[in-house]
Amino acid sequence: MSERSGRRKSGGRSAKREARQHQQAELSAFIERKIPYFEYLNEESLELIEHNADTVLEEIGIEFRDDPEALTLLKDAGADVTGERVRFPRGMCRSIIQASAPKEFTQYARNPKRNVIIGGKRTVLVPAYGSPFVRDLDQGRRYATLKDFENFVKLAYMAPALHHSGGTVCEPVDLPVNKRHFDMIYSHIKYSDKPFMGSVTHPDRAQDTVDMAKQVFGDEFVEHNTVCISLINANSPMTFDATMLGAAKVYARHNQATIISPFILAGAMSPVTTAGTVTQILAEALAGMAFVQLVKPGAPVVFGTFASAVSMQTGAPTFGTAEPSMVLYAAASLARRLGVPFRSGGGLCGAKIPDAQAAYESANTMQTAALAGVNFMLHTAGWLEGGLTMGYEKFIMDIDQASMLDVLLKGMDMSENGLAMDAMREVGPGAHFLGSAHTLANFEKAFYRSTVADNNSFEQWQADGSLDCTQRANTLWKKMLNDYEAPALDPAIDEALCDFIARRKLSFPDKDY
Amino acid sequence: MSERSGRRKSGGRSAKREARQHQQAELSAFIERKIPYFEYLNEESLELIEHNADTVLEEIGIEFRDDPEALTLLKDAGADVTGERVRFPRGMCRSIIQASAPKEFTQYARNPKRNVIIGGKRTVLVPAYGSPFVRDLDQGRRYATLKDFENFVKLAYMAPALHHSGGTVCEPVDLPVNKRHFDMIYSHIKYSDKPFMGSVTHPDRAQDTVDMAKQVFGDEFVEHNTVCISLINANSPMTFDATMLGAAKVYARHNQATIISPFILAGAMSPVTTAGTVTQILAEALAGMAFVQLVKPGAPVVFGTFASAVSMQTGAPTFGTAEPSMVLYAAASLARRLGVPFRSGGGLCGAKIPDAQAAYESANTMQTAALAGVNFMLHTAGWLEGGLTMGYEKFIMDIDQASMLDVLLKGMDMSENGLAMDAMREVGPGAHFLGSAHTLANFEKAFYRSTVADNNSFEQWQADGSLDCTQRANTLWKKMLNDYEAPALDPAIDEALCDFIARRKLSFPDKDY
Repeated sequence: MSERSGRRKSGGRSAKREARQHQQAELSAFIERKIPYFEYLNEESLELIEHNADTVLEEIGIEFRDDPEALTLLKDAGADVTGERVRFPRGMCRSIIQASAPKEFTQYARNPKRNVIIGGKRTVLVPAYGSPFVRDLDQGRRYATLKDFENFVKLAYMAPALHHSGGTVCEPVDLPVNKRHFDMIYSHIKYSDKPFMGSVTHPDRAQDTVDMAKQVFGDEFVEHNTVCISLINANSPMTFDATMLGAAKVYARHNQATIISPFILAGAMSPVTTAGTVTQILAEALAGMAFVQLVKPGAPVVFGTFASAVSMQTGAPTFGTAEPSMVLYAAASLARRLGVPFRSGGGLCGAKIPDAQAAYESANTMQTAALAGVNFMLHTAGWLEGGLTMGYEKFIMDIDQASMLDVLLKGMDMSENGLAMDAMREVGPGAHFLGSAHTLANFEKAFYRSTVADNNSFEQWQADGSLDCTQRANTLWKKMLNDYEAPALDPAIDEALCDFIARRKLSFPDKDY
Repeated sequence: MSERSGRRKSGGRSAKREARQHQQAELSAFIERKIPYFEYLNEESLELIEHNADTVLEEIGIEFRDDPEALTLLKDAGADVTGERVRFPRGMCRSIIQASAPKEFTQYARNPKRNVIIGGKRTVLVPAYGSPFVRDLDQGRRYATLKDFENFVKLAYMAPALHHSGGTVCEPVDLPVNKRHFDMIYSHIKYSDKPFMGSVTHPDRAQDTVDMAKQVFGDEFVEHNTVCISLINANSPMTFDATMLGAAKVYARHNQATIISPFILAGAMSPVTTAGTVTQILAEALAGMAFVQLVKPGAPVVFGTFASAVSMQTGAPTFGTAEPSMVLYAAASLARRLGVPFRSGGGLCGAKIPDAQAAYESANTMQTAALAGVNFMLHTAGWLEGGLTMGYEKFIMDIDQASMLDVLLKGMDMSENGLAMDAMREVGPGAHFLGSAHTLANFEKAFYRSTVADNNSFEQWQADGSLDCTQRANTLWKKMLNDYEAPALDPAIDEALCDFIARRKLSFPDKDY
């Protein structure tokens, strides 16, 4: 891998460039958690949910639609298949998963310093995914384009707190639906050197993702190592469709990682209670992950969940309230008991603009995700409006929060310097610590400094124009894009990628589905 | 107590009034926690901090300034007193506290349905405290007046999520400093029936608070029961001043509760590390609480802390970052190990306006306080600008968050109805739950519904005027004040209070300190 790193091969450029490389090298590629998990439910409750999920799998079953191959695989493994309904003997899914699914795995990046380990005590922070719209303070809300997509890849590349380039950071709706995956994958490779996510909207597009990865990493490397991770949503309740199953099969067969994610608007796609919702999530995730292990034992698979509570008054999804937090805490505990990595979000909110609503809701979900022990935190930055919109200013605010999660998860420094007994001895009662030797020795690294918060006096804030957080964030993303420099990419790889894309694009007509 | 409740004695008024009383009666007076605490530090780290705090108390000591009586008390109890510096043998403070301080206690309200239990698994949510300014969307930032004070007492009375009327909800700076406590205490009694906090700015004002409480609850009742709770800040580092010691003595001698709170801007008033800061907080709280127990064994005392991290670049206090959260988690664990109730906040932020910065910071602190196990959550609602400003719109946003904490802390419903197996059996794969029997039976109580969030579609939100969260909150507080109806107060009590205030105000001249 490291021999393939374009950055390493590139000749020295300006001093500024060197400085940036040095700075990036100092950042950690993911967070190593040093604090406990918050276990919201007790052992007895978790066992009851596990028992009930097995009852759902045994009595009700899961539909695997329009995929005869999947039905054959499941039947051969011991499931009871009637039509497309698949019922699982108690414990079957769990034992299939535990027999072969890795507890953790490495996703390789084209820059080896950016490789991430997914699972165990690691947290990988990932941009938001899937919005057709973007919003910024200047132009408001509009359909996303490839230009926006590239912008968010660049911003994620430059954000030290984000460990991953993500996937569909927004939908480039100016491109044909059946070809935009080429440009998205190319952008992730070209404009970033962080790991990325693959296309799942058609099995062929999954295969294109794998083939493009091979141009970067080499055929042999890709077949034996995980270089992309992809989001396979269940069609809740209790259903997987052929598109998602097809993509999952492609990735699993190439040893690429999949995230099996029940996508739940609780009350509509699951029961209107939290315990019922968690039960259904576990049943769906168990069935999907077992399926992946049957396709290719040992292929990396992640237990995912996305849960919102539907407003019973309006039918709208809601975020940042206590119920989705409960579901997230419980699902994380269940994933740990099962022994697989866990994915959830993130900076989720229902707000249309990055106002106080957006921030309360996002912070509530991020804190929950961090304390619960999410390994792959999709939707960490940018999310607005229930995922319909990717916000430029929201992105800036969220990466600031993501940096704080890094500090929180790394725990309290209990070293002699951290305990600071000498500082208290030096200063004593009634004096102040600002000039103490201990403070002078530590002040540069002490306490996280927000990029976007204003902590000046009221008078200074007024003198600076009485800006709100959105206005400050607006300045910051423009500066970041202005300062952006692409990570070096071996010209031969770039050319091979462009050739591949050109050839494939010409081989079939544009379509908008 | 209950015989003295003005509300119970009051004759029937309008049907609307009856309905409101009925609604209030259904609310719980405080939160009974059903979920675990989040223990951020392990046993070994907590023991190390306890050991070091004892070292601080033994080697460095605490200053008790300008209060010879305090020094005599402490010396007689076994402390080493040199000048005003008091050094404590290892374990002395802890054993004094554990010998007599109650693990939990009831603070009585004039409406017995509003009595709160402080300590153990209870959480009591309390408005913000101490700001000289107020802010609303219409008039911006301005000095607070008695009218503002009354408004916030009324809003807290009407907020189901707040269990307490608080104390100095804002400073009525239109009144003389040395007399405004009369009007503040009167407002809490007149415009609310929730429990309240006392004055601490002079021992005489503490005595006035007790005397006014006696007009409401009766002399005998007050001497044997806790009817007010008051905030005694340490002058960190490692110092208590005569004003606070004087007020603490008055309250303790009358069995009224005190909160011994190191007020820490970490890096200035404590070491620039989190572990050092927690160590100092524990040492100061131990010394202060032991002092209170020496004044009156058994007087209710609360371990309080307020910790902000000072920006090493600007010297400004910062909120909502990871470091103050670590300090809060650790202090809560230490209070539990000691066996006393714990106070911390709340919706803290450094933002000047209720924008995204305010909300991220407030949500981060509130989630931390809730999971850490804060018993008395001061500053739950209204806090802006590091406590300099009480915000009307911020108050509305924060009480919405407070309602969500109530849901989160009460845990997941693991009843048969909560587990919802029949709902999943009824609906099955690929259908939706909106019309299911289980949903219809549960939808009214299912999922918290925010008062201030907009979860409508983008198009509906636009049609409604594209309002941000602050604009929606602006409408809400005005409606609440418009709908406000005072809880009944026995006219004889009201008259006695007014007489007492008038007599006392005439007995000494106005002063502005």
